[in-house]
Amino acid sequence: AAHGARKMEDYGRFLALLASSLLVGFVSVILSLVWVFHYREGLSWDGSPAEFNWHPVLIITGFVFIQGIAIIVYRLPWTWKCSKLLMKFIHAGLNTIAMILAIVSMVAVFDFHNAKNIPNMYSLHSWIGLTAVIFYSLQLFLGFAVFLLPFAPVRLRVALMPIHVYSGLTIFATVIATALMGITEKLIFALQNPAYSASPPEATFVNCLGLLLVIFGSLILWMASRPHWKRPPENAKILRPIGATPEGTEVESTMTNSSNADKSDLRSNTEAGRKQNIKFDEAGQRSTM
Amino acid sequence: AAHGARKMEDYGRFLALLASSLLVGFVSVILSLVWVFHYREGLSWDGSPAEFNWHPVLIITGFVFIQGIAIIVYRLPWTWKCSKLLMKFIHAGLNTIAMILAIVSMVAVFDFHNAKNIPNMYSLHSWIGLTAVIFYSLQLFLGFAVFLLPFAPVRLRVALMPIHVYSGLTIFATVIATALMGITEKLIFALQNPAYSASPPEATFVNCLGLLLVIFGSLILWMASRPHWKRPPENAKILRPIGATPEGTEVESTMTNSSNADKSDLRSNTEAGRKQNIKFDEAGQRSTM
Repeated sequence: AAHGARKMEDYGRFLALLASSLLVGFVSVILSLVWVFHYREGLSWDGSPAEFNWHPVLIITGFVFIQGIAIIVYRLPWTWKCSKLLMKFIHAGLNTIAMILAIVSMVAVFDFHNAKNIPNMYSLHSWIGLTAVIFYSLQLFLGFAVFLLPFAPVRLRVALMPIHVYSGLTIFATVIATALMGITEKLIFALQNPAYSASPPEATFVNCLGLLLVIFGSLILWMASRPHWKRPPENAKILRPIGATPEGTEVESTMTNSSNADKSDLRSNTEAGRKQNIKFDEAGQRSTM
Repeated sequence: AAHGARKMEDYGRFLALLASSLLVGFVSVILSLVWVFHYREGLSWDGSPAEFNWHPVLIITGFVFIQGIAIIVYRLPWTWKCSKLLMKFIHAGLNTIAMILAIVSMVAVFDFHNAKNIPNMYSLHSWIGLTAVIFYSLQLFLGFAVFLLPFAPVRLRVALMPIHVYSGLTIFATVIATALMGITEKLIFALQNPAYSASPPEATFVNCLGLLLVIFGSLILWMASRPHWKRPPENAKILRPIGATPEGTEVESTMTNSSNADKSDLRSNTEAGRKQNIKFDEAGQRSTM
């Protein structure tokens, strides 16, 4: 009973964090809309500053909020009864939407720059932002080819999964850093009289938006890096000893093993050989955790 | 023999990454000096722009490079024969140096702003940067009180270690993001004729410095998040079964367990009780991994 209570407490903690990150992400999207409609020129697609304004709105909606949700979608406990394949499609689908929004938001900037004869790609923001979009697209393509299509051998999936997870989280953090640079640029350029340094209401408002993006990123990275909130492996039943409770310690230790699936080819002799096959199966099944 | 060869290959990979990150970090520090001496007003402490220039130099040296080394110092294989306590002192010492340099670098900016009647703390860069310094100081203080001083109970160390690791890496990433915002601000303000958008040599040069900071951060985060490069636990010998090789699979699986030490109080019945004590000892001994 005490064990069950602790499980529920842990589940409650996950839900509280999830609700917080959804709230912070949603408020960020709203604030980006308030920024462009209340303080700036609104949205349009005509080469005017209102076309530029699609850039922050689509980046915050797609490249920050939707990407963040895509990262933690496997961790939602009520999806654990859904098939892994369905969850992979949702993960890939959300990331595809995020990529499309990021690309459209870049087109808006190039279009605006060209209409106004402003040079493209001179700033550190643009360099790192374009790099992030390219790596994100590569990550999506490779993830699709290796983990969603049924052709990749299990050994390859096992070897690439830690790299996939690391790249995903690093790209996500880089995207948020790039958004902060973009906010900095835009406030310096757009606020003239009064200047950014005079802290007009728009400056304070958008600084708060920037803080929310950092909080959103920190919440997502915390949820994504807790091993005990991982989706349980598909073959948990196989490894569960007779008499253990279904949601008991064995499931957790299985998850621990699988988080080190990348190390399995470092093992050689001892009893690890027997476990090897089970772990490989598992890595294949839950390769996009 | 095949197993030993793989171990050596893995060791070689660690050394290659370590050399790369030291090189990238060192070159970043050099580029920050070239920036302020070749393109800017040099260094001095007289309220002039040359006083401001201490800010990027000290941040990149202390808050990026030295903090990065402090993060991975437990992972250097040749330190594994040193006592854990010595390594904790080195970790805390490097972080203290980084904190002092970060604070001095902030004083330089405030001093320069006040001399020139430029407002303080109006930009997103300053908001997030000051927050990062405050959290960094708290992290150092708490880390010292809990993991270095001998008073904290093992249970507390076990519970706080995952939070310590997460906060450390998140603050480090936030510091790099803040540096990128700072570079963006400085290039927009300092480059006037030709402007940043005309891509003068200084703009391209400092953009490259910004890219190096992102690469440095990515390398450190990769090294810090590979479970198999962790310092082995002090009691590896206790858990090693008779006949297993000293650098064999058991050491790895011990490390895996200890990385989930935070979960141990979620466990209740089954055979975990017996292991509990060993794991707690271990978490106490290697609490600053």
